[in-house]
Amino acid sequence: MGIRIAVAGASGYAGGELLRLIAGHPELDLICATAHSQAGQPVAAVHPHLAGLDFRLSATDPQALATADLVFLALPHGESAAIAAQLPAGVRVVDLGADHRLLDEQAWARYYGGPHAGAWTYGLPELPGQRQKIRSSDRVAATGCYAATITLALAPLLHSGLAEPADVVVVAASGTSGAGKSPKTHLLGSEVMGDLSPYKVGAHQHVPEIKQATGAHTLSMTPVLAPMPRGILATVTAVPTSCDITEAVVREVLLDAYADEPFVHVLAEKQWPHTGATLGSNSVHLQATVDVDSGRIIVVSALDNLGKGAAGQAVQCANIMLGLPETSGLSAFGVAP
Amino acid sequence: MGIRIAVAGASGYAGGELLRLIAGHPELDLICATAHSQAGQPVAAVHPHLAGLDFRLSATDPQALATADLVFLALPHGESAAIAAQLPAGVRVVDLGADHRLLDEQAWARYYGGPHAGAWTYGLPELPGQRQKIRSSDRVAATGCYAATITLALAPLLHSGLAEPADVVVVAASGTSGAGKSPKTHLLGSEVMGDLSPYKVGAHQHVPEIKQATGAHTLSMTPVLAPMPRGILATVTAVPTSCDITEAVVREVLLDAYADEPFVHVLAEKQWPHTGATLGSNSVHLQATVDVDSGRIIVVSALDNLGKGAAGQAVQCANIMLGLPETSGLSAFGVAP
Amino acid sequence: MGIRIAVAGASGYAGGELLRLIAGHPELDLICATAHSQAGQPVAAVHPHLAGLDFRLSATDPQALATADLVFLALPHGESAAIAAQLPAGVRVVDLGADHRLLDEQAWARYYGGPHAGAWTYGLPELPGQRQKIRSSDRVAATGCYAATITLALAPLLHSGLAEPADVVVVAASGTSGAGKSPKTHLLGSEVMGDLSPYKVGAHQHVPEIKQATGAHTLSMTPVLAPMPRGILATVTAVPTSCDITEAVVREVLLDAYADEPFVHVLAEKQWPHTGATLGSNSVHLQATVDVDSGRIIVVSALDNLGKGAAGQAVQCANIMLGLPETSGLSAFGVAP
Amino acid sequence: MGIRIAVAGASGYAGGELLRLIAGHPELDLICATAHSQAGQPVAAVHPHLAGLDFRLSATDPQALATADLVFLALPHGESAAIAAQLPAGVRVVDLGADHRLLDEQAWARYYGGPHAGAWTYGLPELPGQRQKIRSSDRVAATGCYAATITLALAPLLHSGLAEPADVVVVAASGTSGAGKSPKTHLLGSEVMGDLSPYKVGAHQHVPEIKQATGAHTLSMTPVLAPMPRGILATVTAVPTSCDITEAVVREVLLDAYADEPFVHVLAEKQWPHTGATLGSNSVHLQATVDVDSGRIIVVSALDNLGKGAAGQAVQCANIMLGLPETSGLSAFGVAP
Repeated sequence: MGIRIAVAGASGYAGGELLRLIAGHPELDLICATAHSQAGQPVAAVHPHLAGLDFRLSATDPQALATADLVFLALPHGESAAIAAQLPAGVRVVDLGADHRLLDEQAWARYYGGPHAGAWTYGLPELPGQRQKIRSSDRVAATGCYAATITLALAPLLHSGLAEPADVVVVAASGTSGAGKSPKTHLLGSEVMGDLSPYKVGAHQHVPEIKQATGAHTLSMTPVLAPMPRGILATVTAVPTSCDITEAVVREVLLDAYADEPFVHVLAEKQWPHTGATLGSNSVHLQATVDVDSGRIIVVSALDNLGKGAAGQAVQCANIMLGLPETSGLSAFGVAP
Repeated sequence: MGIRIAVAGASGYAGGELLRLIAGHPELDLICATAHSQAGQPVAAVHPHLAGLDFRLSATDPQALATADLVFLALPHGESAAIAAQLPAGVRVVDLGADHRLLDEQAWARYYGGPHAGAWTYGLPELPGQRQKIRSSDRVAATGCYAATITLALAPLLHSGLAEPADVVVVAASGTSGAGKSPKTHLLGSEVMGDLSPYKVGAHQHVPEIKQATGAHTLSMTPVLAPMPRGILATVTAVPTSCDITEAVVREVLLDAYADEPFVHVLAEKQWPHTGATLGSNSVHLQATVDVDSGRIIVVSALDNLGKGAAGQAVQCANIMLGLPETSGLSAFGVAP
Repeated sequence: MGIRIAVAGASGYAGGELLRLIAGHPELDLICATAHSQAGQPVAAVHPHLAGLDFRLSATDPQALATADLVFLALPHGESAAIAAQLPAGVRVVDLGADHRLLDEQAWARYYGGPHAGAWTYGLPELPGQRQKIRSSDRVAATGCYAATITLALAPLLHSGLAEPADVVVVAASGTSGAGKSPKTHLLGSEVMGDLSPYKVGAHQHVPEIKQATGAHTLSMTPVLAPMPRGILATVTAVPTSCDITEAVVREVLLDAYADEPFVHVLAEKQWPHTGATLGSNSVHLQATVDVDSGRIIVVSALDNLGKGAAGQAVQCANIMLGLPETSGLSAFGVAP
Repeated sequence: MGIRIAVAGASGYAGGELLRLIAGHPELDLICATAHSQAGQPVAAVHPHLAGLDFRLSATDPQALATADLVFLALPHGESAAIAAQLPAGVRVVDLGADHRLLDEQAWARYYGGPHAGAWTYGLPELPGQRQKIRSSDRVAATGCYAATITLALAPLLHSGLAEPADVVVVAASGTSGAGKSPKTHLLGSEVMGDLSPYKVGAHQHVPEIKQATGAHTLSMTPVLAPMPRGILATVTAVPTSCDITEAVVREVLLDAYADEPFVHVLAEKQWPHTGATLGSNSVHLQATVDVDSGRIIVVSALDNLGKGAAGQAVQCANIMLGLPETSGLSAFGVAP
């Protein structure tokens, strides 16, 4: 008998990825997967890639969720806080949504609006000291998908004093699954194939989360929708604190920061990350250089937005919270080509 | 200490998928992965999705391969027979290439040319009686990717007498990884994206393999290159032996044929297979109906050409040959979306 | 002062392509473009690729439409007949929808349902004698997109007696714009990219239209949704009436049928059509062979479903009806790669 | 009898687009199209989208080229200078390659290497005063594709004094046709579909061209290969010279700069450019804002890398040089979806 797991929000893309990962996890047993409009549907009707699993999605019932040892919440922001408040203290919770990420109430109000639910332990184990905090927490707020991609590239630069905390400039492109499963015209295949499309230019809600996690002072982040189902590629540029900082120095800092990490790979020199290599995995790929013209440090980061950017990250946190091997049920290897 | 595995042809797409599956397999230990022009390269330089694996590809040396318990050959046709001939009897071999599939020397000459190496046990465990033969074989010829897709759709129709063995008509579209990793202009991303392109029309080399595996007498098969990296979708149509044959009858035959199979899923009524749902998995999805205008039986089949169509199939055969659980190291669930 | 043109249903994909073609047409002046929910919107808000055009979509008003010399109806089936009935006899009409295509009331009832509006002149100028009929018609029903693709491949085989009219088997794959612009989950980019997905298997509504246009007796047609915005590739197979029929004979029949056609290209020997080469054009590409195993004739046909499959076809018909050069405002050349 | 045109380098992607545009141009007559390895091939074998054109590519012979009124050179850098040197003064030349773009010999040596051919008139008519210079030039160097995209976004900011000329940061993603038609493994469809991949990070050869054209002092530009055949999306960020600069101010500067331009569209407020809307056209779409967190000005620019980024730009320049209407043979409207 394994550890009892429930998933709320199981009909969405992050929810589907959670179900896939749990089905392949040696220690976790799914006891309950809930949804709203799809409640009552066989899981394989909602997620055809899970054909062979034989249960139905149920309605979102906090009492049923409460019978689990650990609950994953994969709900739109604003919804997870309400559910979480109804779960008893003894039930561990990993929230994949934004509700419990921000410490700063004003940042919450500015970028999300509505009541601020208060912050939980931030679920990025690779940040210094964070793994320990996750281990001793019953409530963990998993990262935003852009936030994970950018923070893992940027944090070592700022923590080591290599880069100025002001004037960080990021452009990050995401596959369409990051925009969710609700049907909207601009997300139709006809619209997105063959197309790159920026959105929320100048005001993306992951900015305060990244600043909180990295200590950046000002950050310009432009998100772009890319014609692929999964993957985020972030180009993170920052001003070095000294003109002596070379590519080798930046690489050394990244290599040091992630030397013992099973899911963060600083690639071999001159090999640049690309999103396809991370598909379906929990890995992040990193590479760095210094721009010859501007002298900026450039770090490029790639991951699977549903993997290390969402469901994989959440399972990694759950493994830590439950005292399981941290890599259990997670693959470091992408499905490519 | 696990079972010692070698892979010849490890730099190609099927080879890369074998490496990924072996890395995640609880019983198999890779001792040797060989290549031609890429020999000497770190595996992660050749297969960036395997970042974190730390070995180099070696040159193709039959003596090194012979130290394994089981060798996978993922080589172009004509090359695997030559290597296989140099491996001692005690070493089990699974050939992912075409060299040992065809019983009929004339068919070999017509569709492939060159010397006929002779046939090995055909590696499609879901054919009646075939699992038993694979279990007792030291040499197994894994299926062609189209052949697997089409045979699993067609064999039950012919074995049950539902369909005429003559005048089977198939159109099957494949992702581009089926065309291999050698750079050719017509396989460039600029050419294949947004494009459907038929090839080898009227004379594909998997036709005799499918006829041999299913008992079909005549078969028209048109392959199409589709703008996606992986996946095959086959539309198989056949003339029913009686006009009383309904969709329900056809579905029943398929459900019976595959009732105990872990990797063949006859979907719920009216739910049609699509390739995306099988990505990265070893599963095949099937559905059937009877055409209202022509009365033809239509069976649609979807799988991942590198999974159940190549490397997954090969690992499944290896599991059987080695007395391991047949599903070991293989996922029934696709990575979607 | 040019010929006055109105477009009803201008917010959809076929409507947008009509606006693009009319904007580039030397003789046509758009006076009115109507929509439902998007009425009142600037055209460039609805169709960003038409940035630079400066008018708004208006509500669908038959009186406004009636002030045009020619009206294009790009409406869902069932809606165009109602509008058409309100347009005076002197106004020429090209209906891109299905309402006026079928002669057979029973076929209409079976595949579409609702009242049968009666048939207009069928808008496929390349059929024998059809150009003449279009020239003298005030009401023309443009073809379905699959119907155009398949009919142009099949009609010469049947008209020439090369192929049996029974047991025609077709598999045709279409880009997603053929499924329209209404947001639906299964049409999201996340779902369609990397995916091939059959639909309406065994009962597509273009079957009776193709039979009517070609004289086929029975036809199995399986449509597949392909991961690209535009394009249809049809693989048409038919039983030859004699076993003496070779590839050369079939090619000769196609070359004869289309010798004088500006938009139908029978490609050079062994060069197969692919959809990407027709993007944005009004051209159809054809090639043929005879299958070595089954002896079936195989004709492959490719076009742009919004071009020759819809808006281009409609403009070609309009050119004929209006006494303009038939190629006016239409390109025979695709935008590739 | 039209103006006599020759194209050298007609087998590549930019060459193919030139042939398409010339075929649809009312005043230009192609007299000669040359290639290297493809010399002797029918044009439709090399460019299937041009089926219907009936001539063969010829070998690259300066004497044949010299019989034209205007020659387009679409050759790799280093090759066009050699050809150009053999063309008599009376023959107008538009070079789509890099050989004659840079004024600065040292920048040439650093980013390209080899002998510096010297600069011609820069072929970007929308720069202040540039149209006049092009009109009176016999030799014009058309822009690089990234350079056109970024310069049109950036130049008005710097010319107006809105932005600081130092610390410009750009991330720009391009469709794969920008990487050319030579077969390379990393450009295979299997590799690029579903993938975003940065390249030449920190040192792209268009940087000095952009600095020369805009007056930027330092510029960090990171190029990314995107999974689409065509299109460039550039996110250009710059530090404002005053904290009073608002989105409205930036938009006003862009609107002023391009008020009379037929191919540059500053979109309606809040409507962001996306590449798909420019496919096949000669248009550039622009939009701007000011980042709420960092205060940086962000301008996003989209165009078709083979259109306004290469062949369209070149035809526009040729129209100006030849005294034709500047928009002749060019479309302002994209082919979408």
